[in-house]
Amino acid sequence: MRIIERVTEMQQQAESWRREGRRIALVPTMGYLHEGHLTLMREARNHGDEIVVSIFVNPTQFGPGEDFERYPRDMARDELLAGEVGVTVVFAPSVREMYPDGYQTFVEVMEVTRPLCGRSRPVHFRGVTTVVAKLFNIVKPDAAVFGEKDFQQLTVIRRMVDDLNMDVQIIGHPIVREEDGLAMSSRNAYLTGSQRGAALSLSRALGEAERMVHGGERRGAVILDAVRSQLGSEGELRIDYAELRDPDTLENVTEIRGPTLLALAAFVGQTRLIDNRVLPG
Amino acid sequence: MRIIERVTEMQQQAESWRREGRRIALVPTMGYLHEGHLTLMREARNHGDEIVVSIFVNPTQFGPGEDFERYPRDMARDELLAGEVGVTVVFAPSVREMYPDGYQTFVEVMEVTRPLCGRSRPVHFRGVTTVVAKLFNIVKPDAAVFGEKDFQQLTVIRRMVDDLNMDVQIIGHPIVREEDGLAMSSRNAYLTGSQRGAALSLSRALGEAERMVHGGERRGAVILDAVRSQLGSEGELRIDYAELRDPDTLENVTEIRGPTLLALAAFVGQTRLIDNRVLPG
Repeated sequence: MRIIERVTEMQQQAESWRREGRRIALVPTMGYLHEGHLTLMREARNHGDEIVVSIFVNPTQFGPGEDFERYPRDMARDELLAGEVGVTVVFAPSVREMYPDGYQTFVEVMEVTRPLCGRSRPVHFRGVTTVVAKLFNIVKPDAAVFGEKDFQQLTVIRRMVDDLNMDVQIIGHPIVREEDGLAMSSRNAYLTGSQRGAALSLSRALGEAERMVHGGERRGAVILDAVRSQLGSEGELRIDYAELRDPDTLENVTEIRGPTLLALAAFVGQTRLIDNRVLPG
Repeated sequence: MRIIERVTEMQQQAESWRREGRRIALVPTMGYLHEGHLTLMREARNHGDEIVVSIFVNPTQFGPGEDFERYPRDMARDELLAGEVGVTVVFAPSVREMYPDGYQTFVEVMEVTRPLCGRSRPVHFRGVTTVVAKLFNIVKPDAAVFGEKDFQQLTVIRRMVDDLNMDVQIIGHPIVREEDGLAMSSRNAYLTGSQRGAALSLSRALGEAERMVHGGERRGAVILDAVRSQLGSEGELRIDYAELRDPDTLENVTEIRGPTLLALAAFVGQTRLIDNRVLPG
């Protein structure tokens, strides 16, 4: 496994692979890898001959007051883990390499970035789409794999790829959970023991909503009331949003008539966690 | 020469050329081709084995009240001319093919789009960068050729390409002029006989400014006064802007110390014309 830190070196490597007819699969990450990331890398092996993992804590997707500086980092461990799952190249540029002085270009997706996380994190998705567009131009992947935990992010990226005619296949992979149900996230490292207990109510609420739909409940308001009361029973947890949305357009859903996204975000202490499930229609 | 109207067909053609090691050069145009465009196509032959010309009057770069509907079009003649200069493919998509229902993604360059044409045409460059990003993803060019008449456009595109790490070489080509000095433009077709006479003052003013600099004048205000008085003597011409700018950053210049862009825009009747010259420093 090779570590590449320079944009031009990565581009030359990618171009030479493409000329040899080697298919490239990319897994973009912010590092501090966990089993969820490793699962995406294993999935990537089904879509490419060469697997590139990018590790870059992207400043443009953090708002003022968010956790850019304290976001957990452990490059040595990340490289070890990536090597073990058969990654060809770890692309790990510096912030200055990605955003040199005078940088001033952004890619912005409009409607689908407005609700959910976009409401409480107004510059977040502009940062995500900008860095993903850059990574696609640098790594030149045939396919890129993203986790469904960041469901809105995946929707936004699919929209960008379609709209800008990027010739990249986008693969979504189901959420990977801890044994107790907590969705894996690098931010789980922030949680104290009792906070972690409180965080479990997110996956529990999703499970309860699914049981309600299986039991015939179709009224969005009734399902969301149950979800909010489940989450509200945890003193250390503050709901950011709990919403039902169309999985493709992210438009609001009031009655379950087909597969429907139940998306949750909550602060547990200072830590913002998200989770979701597509409820069967 | 082949005409392609579909995005996926163009992408497959481009991908197959790249796999064969054929270099692709793109000349993006809005059609109604004139000698300026044909010069860009001839230049493109120095940078690619396969020459693609896109012909697309891009609605997102026209503001409300601008000339999108009445912009001149003549596809049959354009195809004939492109064929004569050795173009391989004319890519001529419909508006619906480029911007299907639900389209919502834009590429935006910030600082360098603000002055000059950006001031009177606030959405213009966002439309330009968005469509050029799309064309690059569709045609996959190794090189793309742009005229220097739209000097700010060229600056904005270079900035986008650098910032988003697009692996495309951007070639600028000097302005091509009519025998009387008028910079070639599809919009010249709008001009009446007397308007065309008035329009000549643009290139005359550029020539006068250059003579002043050759004569030792370094004060921006003095040069711009002369330019404005030259343009102001034409009753049918209304100045939009006449400015001295750094050719790379487009920052304002008050004293000539190195190569300096003199950029002009004016309305002649309803027709907005632009012209420029980089004055020697």
